[in-house]
Amino acid sequence: MSDNGANFAGIEAARARIRDLVHRTPVVTSSLLDTHTGAQLYFKCENLQKVGAFKARGASNAVFGLTSAQAKSGVATHSSGNHGAALAQAARQRGITAHVVMPANAPAVKKEAVAAYGGLIIECEPTLAAREQTLQRVVAATGAHVIHPYADARVIAGQGTLALEVLEQVPDLEVIVLPVGGGGLLAGVALAIKHLRPEVEVVAAEPEGADDAFRSFGLGELQPSVAPNTIADGLLAGLGAINFALIQRHVDTILTVSDAEIVQAMRLQWSRLKTVVEPSGAVSFAAVLAHPERFRGRRVVAVISGGNLDLDKLPW
Amino acid sequence: MSDNGANFAGIEAARARIRDLVHRTPVVTSSLLDTHTGAQLYFKCENLQKVGAFKARGASNAVFGLTSAQAKSGVATHSSGNHGAALAQAARQRGITAHVVMPANAPAVKKEAVAAYGGLIIECEPTLAAREQTLQRVVAATGAHVIHPYADARVIAGQGTLALEVLEQVPDLEVIVLPVGGGGLLAGVALAIKHLRPEVEVVAAEPEGADDAFRSFGLGELQPSVAPNTIADGLLAGLGAINFALIQRHVDTILTVSDAEIVQAMRLQWSRLKTVVEPSGAVSFAAVLAHPERFRGRRVVAVISGGNLDLDKLPW
Repeated sequence: MSDNGANFAGIEAARARIRDLVHRTPVVTSSLLDTHTGAQLYFKCENLQKVGAFKARGASNAVFGLTSAQAKSGVATHSSGNHGAALAQAARQRGITAHVVMPANAPAVKKEAVAAYGGLIIECEPTLAAREQTLQRVVAATGAHVIHPYADARVIAGQGTLALEVLEQVPDLEVIVLPVGGGGLLAGVALAIKHLRPEVEVVAAEPEGADDAFRSFGLGELQPSVAPNTIADGLLAGLGAINFALIQRHVDTILTVSDAEIVQAMRLQWSRLKTVVEPSGAVSFAAVLAHPERFRGRRVVAVISGGNLDLDKLPW
Repeated sequence: MSDNGANFAGIEAARARIRDLVHRTPVVTSSLLDTHTGAQLYFKCENLQKVGAFKARGASNAVFGLTSAQAKSGVATHSSGNHGAALAQAARQRGITAHVVMPANAPAVKKEAVAAYGGLIIECEPTLAAREQTLQRVVAATGAHVIHPYADARVIAGQGTLALEVLEQVPDLEVIVLPVGGGGLLAGVALAIKHLRPEVEVVAAEPEGADDAFRSFGLGELQPSVAPNTIADGLLAGLGAINFALIQRHVDTILTVSDAEIVQAMRLQWSRLKTVVEPSGAVSFAAVLAHPERFRGRRVVAVISGGNLDLDKLPW
């Protein structure tokens, strides 16, 4: 397949396209957490992004990159998480309909977000097969244009815009740490970083209970995700093929962390940065805490990928 | 008594003195909360201040305003909350000792904060009488200089520096809403606002269960605080006399809010702003939610005064 925008020019085009559609999120620091880790930490706060997650970048780039003919019947996706809300939000901004297929057991807070942005929710059984079949039926009935949560070059290019901001905000960074689930954020950011600053180390962080990227990277061949189980509900998706190809080329290392390490990192970020981080958003900092020797004395950007969670069900 | 710095010149001097000692905290907005309230809201994030609360301003101004002779035996206070941590932090920066008298039942998280900044904690019974007697004994034994949490002109001047920042960050504000407990923040900010921009409305927000400022303001005479009881544990203190005099002169209105309204406001700030706000810090936004007609269509600064709380004991 053509890479259709999953290259550096695509990321630059995405940045121009979404400049007025998404936030330039802040980078925050904490002298106490620096002392705690021995690193110089810069947290990139995508929990303060529109819809509370970096997903707004990719969804906005995809939706606003459609021709009028492509857009006229709306867009569609299946999502149990932030991509659904991001697609609904971008579609509303463009004035088109978003059809979001969601498993019946998706958290109420995620369904409410999609509905709040005007998305149409179509329920399905909580299996990947049911999600894909239901999406096909929606497309057949509506003619909507499908925008996949991560295995899509336009989405990858949109997520990659985060790297351009980070390089301006922390010009002397030495390492960047990002979570990996389906691989949209990681692929886009790694591509941009290595294009502009190949000496910067790109480290991915993945939950032990959903470690298909770690295994795939080690074996050099895409491995299936089998019964993933982690508190980081945003990272349950299996790695995409297009994403894996980019990750193989541009990522230096993948580290894994336990759920207990994720919860500890999340709690430290809440109490010290006073910022609300969802479990998936704390995985990058968890990797710094779990592998201190690798980061000590270095300037490290840790990406907080999102901040959406049910405040009634905190993991402590 | 002389006002000893609780005037506009004192606030300007405080700003110069503490410029490199405290953070210029950000102002954040949320289009969703604007839609929800009909107001244009600007949240001043003192939960991102050093020690997680505005108290760092007043404590730094007081500690760094001491002569070498005054400072040589350290500083002392009694506090069950953020002032103790702020004083310990400022004292450590100046290289002197802070003696902090704390009731034995103070939250563990507050004691840990004082200890983390190197403060010496002296325990006492949980009564105001015991706190004051214990403080007197500490002063007799050490010669430490007492810095009261709020009934102190240097502390009031330090808290007032927040107003100078806000006027730069939101130059066209029409209303500012602040919590009131002992009245240090309110007195300092109201004084500065009315000196520079008398047309800006200054609104105080107070918990119904600790409404001595509301009653004093209405009657025109300082009323005692009797058995205060509110979830906003940072606002339990009775209004200071020096504070009341400034509040009478410079504050336009005092509104009260229920604990249920405080919890609702806090939760909205957590979920929508992704920022960790303690109950006392949510009281200003609670007043906006409880009195929408007063704020609709106006540019309103709501001060988030702090973000320190026990994450194991959330009020929902």
